Amino acid sequence: MPKVVDHEARRAALGEAVWRVALRRGLEEATLREIAAEAGWSTGVLTHYFADKDELVCFAFRLVVERASDRYLTAAEAEDSVDRIRAALRETLPLDEERLAEARVWLAFLGRSLSHPGLAEERRAFYAQWRASLAGLIEDGRRRGHLRPGLDAEAEAVGLIALVDGLALQAVSDPTALDAARQEKLLDAAVERLRPAK
Amino acid sequence: MPKVVDHEARRAALGEAVWRVALRRGLEEATLREIAAEAGWSTGVLTHYFADKDELVCFAFRLVVERASDRYLTAAEAEDSVDRIRAALRETLPLDEERLAEARVWLAFLGRSLSHPGLAEERRAFYAQWRASLAGLIEDGRRRGHLRPGLDAEAEAVGLIALVDGLALQAVSDPTALDAARQEKLLDAAVERLRPAK
Repeated sequence: MPKVVDHEARRAALGEAVWRVALRRGLEEATLREIAAEAGWSTGVLTHYFADKDELVCFAFRLVVERASDRYLTAAEAEDSVDRIRAALRETLPLDEERLAEARVWLAFLGRSLSHPGLAEERRAFYAQWRASLAGLIEDGRRRGHLRPGLDAEAEAVGLIALVDGLALQAVSDPTALDAARQEKLLDAAVERLRPAK
Repeated sequence: MPKVVDHEARRAALGEAVWRVALRRGLEEATLREIAAEAGWSTGVLTHYFADKDELVCFAFRLVVERASDRYLTAAEAEDSVDRIRAALRETLPLDEERLAEARVWLAFLGRSLSHPGLAEERRAFYAQWRASLAGLIEDGRRRGHLRPGLDAEAEAVGLIALVDGLALQAVSDPTALDAARQEKLLDAAVERLRPAK
């Protein structure tokens, strides 16, 4: 049989290697050689997947986005619109060690994207998509009468994303000062404000 | 007369050089040599001020904190507590080009701090101090009867800082999608919620 390279499997293995290095010491200082060693590959094989460090960091960011998006969409299935928005946003908070690691990769990506135009475009597109997706959930809830009639869905989406992003930043900075219970309570208060006044 | 080196003036000149490089292309990729050239110094003289890149990034972050803190404290002088909190937080939003540049330095610092323990401690201390300062403003307003009696000042501070931080992140990512008017409107809604129910 000819030797067949399973690119999907390789990509998954690579994702795991990148993730382990990200968890262990962050991606900022990591070299392509180190990622290759973690995956058990030569640096030459790795360059089939990444031309340079930017592409590696972008790949890691996409891993985080995929993980969080899967959870986000699965969570957004409750019947009540406020519950749905809360469940979706909850999945983006750094409530445990694994998600705190995701928040760290995300922050490393954002920092790096400042001086790398390719990453900056990825960052811009990511936020635009997140805003549109959340504004869609809010707009849908408004139409179904679950939320305040006069809501500006896009503005509310910006504000809610800002809140969960900002909570993630503080949790990364000082995990003990901002525990899971406090994060959830603040998110809860923010989404409950979307309901119609009684 | 003996040659006297005015260290305060040198530090100020250095601050301006660091700031110009940060604005022009970010600090992530900048070298100490480049900073020295921008200041018109030798790299040798520069090392009296920074032993390494970490110290440079830390210095730039402190510049941003100083600028923003000066504005923050000056703004926090209104008579009404809600106005005071709004004015103080407003000074941390990236409402113009200069403050957007500050937000970029801050984000570069946060990204870098993930893999540099000295910067991580600086980041943790900064957020702890900001939370305490804002919680103090809120607690004071609560005592004076300007805010809701049952407020948890510390939790409200975490939430408001998360909001302005998160707005800064989105504004850095996509300045056109999140203009100054929208940022101010979202901040306004958040601080008005601190008032007692009518």
